[in-house]
Amino acid sequence: MTLLDRFAEFVVRVGANVQPGQDVWVRALVEHAETARAVAEQAYRAGARRVTVEYRDLQVRRSTVELAPFDALGTAYPHELAFYPWLREIGAAWIGLIGDPDPHLFDGLDPARMAAVDSKAVRAEWRRVIETQQVAWTLVSAPNEGWARAVFGEPDVDRLWQAVAVAMRLDAPDPVAAWRERAATLAARGTTLTDMGLDAVRFRGPGTDLTIGLIPGARWEGGAMRTIGGVEFMPNLPTEEVFTSPDWRRAEGTVSVTAPLELPTMGGAVSGLRLRFAEGRIVEVEADEGADLVRTELASDDRAPYLGEVALVDGDSGVRRAGLQFHNMLLDENVACHIAYGNAFTEMIPGSADLPKEERLAIGLNMSVVHTDLTIGGPGVDVDGILPDGSVRPIIRAEEWVLPVS
Amino acid sequence: MTLLDRFAEFVVRVGANVQPGQDVWVRALVEHAETARAVAEQAYRAGARRVTVEYRDLQVRRSTVELAPFDALGTAYPHELAFYPWLREIGAAWIGLIGDPDPHLFDGLDPARMAAVDSKAVRAEWRRVIETQQVAWTLVSAPNEGWARAVFGEPDVDRLWQAVAVAMRLDAPDPVAAWRERAATLAARGTTLTDMGLDAVRFRGPGTDLTIGLIPGARWEGGAMRTIGGVEFMPNLPTEEVFTSPDWRRAEGTVSVTAPLELPTMGGAVSGLRLRFAEGRIVEVEADEGADLVRTELASDDRAPYLGEVALVDGDSGVRRAGLQFHNMLLDENVACHIAYGNAFTEMIPGSADLPKEERLAIGLNMSVVHTDLTIGGPGVDVDGILPDGSVRPIIRAEEWVLPVS
Repeated sequence: MTLLDRFAEFVVRVGANVQPGQDVWVRALVEHAETARAVAEQAYRAGARRVTVEYRDLQVRRSTVELAPFDALGTAYPHELAFYPWLREIGAAWIGLIGDPDPHLFDGLDPARMAAVDSKAVRAEWRRVIETQQVAWTLVSAPNEGWARAVFGEPDVDRLWQAVAVAMRLDAPDPVAAWRERAATLAARGTTLTDMGLDAVRFRGPGTDLTIGLIPGARWEGGAMRTIGGVEFMPNLPTEEVFTSPDWRRAEGTVSVTAPLELPTMGGAVSGLRLRFAEGRIVEVEADEGADLVRTELASDDRAPYLGEVALVDGDSGVRRAGLQFHNMLLDENVACHIAYGNAFTEMIPGSADLPKEERLAIGLNMSVVHTDLTIGGPGVDVDGILPDGSVRPIIRAEEWVLPVS
Repeated sequence: MTLLDRFAEFVVRVGANVQPGQDVWVRALVEHAETARAVAEQAYRAGARRVTVEYRDLQVRRSTVELAPFDALGTAYPHELAFYPWLREIGAAWIGLIGDPDPHLFDGLDPARMAAVDSKAVRAEWRRVIETQQVAWTLVSAPNEGWARAVFGEPDVDRLWQAVAVAMRLDAPDPVAAWRERAATLAARGTTLTDMGLDAVRFRGPGTDLTIGLIPGARWEGGAMRTIGGVEFMPNLPTEEVFTSPDWRRAEGTVSVTAPLELPTMGGAVSGLRLRFAEGRIVEVEADEGADLVRTELASDDRAPYLGEVALVDGDSGVRRAGLQFHNMLLDENVACHIAYGNAFTEMIPGSADLPKEERLAIGLNMSVVHTDLTIGGPGVDVDGILPDGSVRPIIRAEEWVLPVS
């Protein structure tokens, strides 16, 4: 079996966990055609009833941003609005292949037009997919020539496949077993953190002293999720994080982002990003390059400048072991601890998905059209948990997970 | 301007005649990405409001034919059924890029599964698009590596682009003017043939003596069509034919198909095809190769073995001048006169699109899920028109159009 077929089978069986008779929807970029075809074939071999591959084309998207009348940006056709509700209704499996073939494709475009191009109503429907667990879904990065060029300076797709195989633990003798073990570790960490009832987490390192207040009772999660029908699936492949959504009102301090940040949807890259938080809000944005892209994205709506996620990742991460900057957030976010400004995850507070906006916000769960991950961990960054009585529990030291896990 | 951009502009402005503020839908194969992107850009430059590129993947289709459960074949999702009615409702322009990258991709698959894979209900909705003139649509062939390999034995895309440029008259000093002149000629031929009130046409050549009865009052058409809003568009690019739908009950004689026939949807190629008609029906099918594919397709429904089209093409055809077998029916059918078994065109009899099936059939218009073109003209084949009084009017001699045109 080729690496491509092993990858495709893994995505189908571990990622989306396709069930016999199920309908499968694969979303990919045109540059992913070879992988999408392999995934479609493996989905049928897993017993899928119908497999649809929907291709997106970022170069067409670029033309839209550049040339469409402004009032057409952000509009949605009826079938686009109906798509995710229909996917939930039929209980499909959804597989998204990502991996931008050109991280600079949108450079130089008007950030206001970039921010306007997607339909917010359609994005809201996607969030309902995440919140309702009717769909087994997985987002996975698939190599292509352009992406390989962005990583290595040459279109060495084979080398990128090898690195992705390490990041996804496909190099293990039994990848499925390796993955189940890692997922169990992540789940146990989540349970331990949830049960501790932490009041806050604190990150300390060069240029970083950030304390993030947590929501009482909010869950930490990691590894697999389950559909309401009980099918286990991996929302992201790979995933190395345990994460929660913090109280959007309670972040204080400063943080240095420890990895280059790409904002392809905003048309550019950001380096040396430094943020200051006060009462939960990002009140200062500085960067060596690209600060305006962040400022523009933070202006997407009132709630964008507040945190929606905090995630803990140790040095045993496959992405960390691969030793590459992948220029791909799904992979790069798993290299170390990270936070995200923007939308929170309602699954942290069971039942909160159906609450009106005011009540969600009152609990502390942020709501925004954006959700952008920022790597803030790494070799020099320690992580502590702070209990309600003020006592401190070390969680990560020198990239090692040191908190005892039950 | 590159040839690709000239092609794309021509497709947008002459083919679909995209209007300012109009929504545009482009359907392409993944192998057409470069062309589809150029078409999308030119559509925006022509003033389109939103341009969507929908990619299809024949390799995924192959997996579906091969691996999907049989009862899933031919099913349609709600959004697939709603698509064409929606396109008509919004008065979009529709551009279809065709050109199979591998004419042998479906070889060896079960013809019964091939015949079952498409939804007949969705195909019926496509026919409504053709019949109702609410959508400006154009089907055009776009080169790609695989197709070039099928034509030349090597992936010489540039050479294929040059040949397609000749076939589409893009090599003329002013392609738009050249095209308008040719379209006017075709329209005048159509008017002349319609006004003559022919009772039948007769084809005579090596292995061919076929008389096809016509429907009194049925129109011959060629060149452009118009939407109900008055926008002129070219359903096919190139098109070199004047065509009508004959009376399905009145074809008699034998015919030798004069070009190799490819039936990619049936999984193979057909050569040396010879047919015998009696009382309109194909009663004998013989071929050097692939006769069973034709027999299987003719069994798709009761009306498949009757004619739905007869089309007249002279030697001034751009496709004829290009001097290639393109292995692409949209091009190859324009090399010479052809007939099609299967569905008829209701636009030949204004108002007939809304008639119940029985009444359409009583008029003489065939109805079927298939419509397959067969080239029957060429250097040795003469075409005559037969008037109701039995007198004969030569139409084509030695590939030259000899009938005086008003």
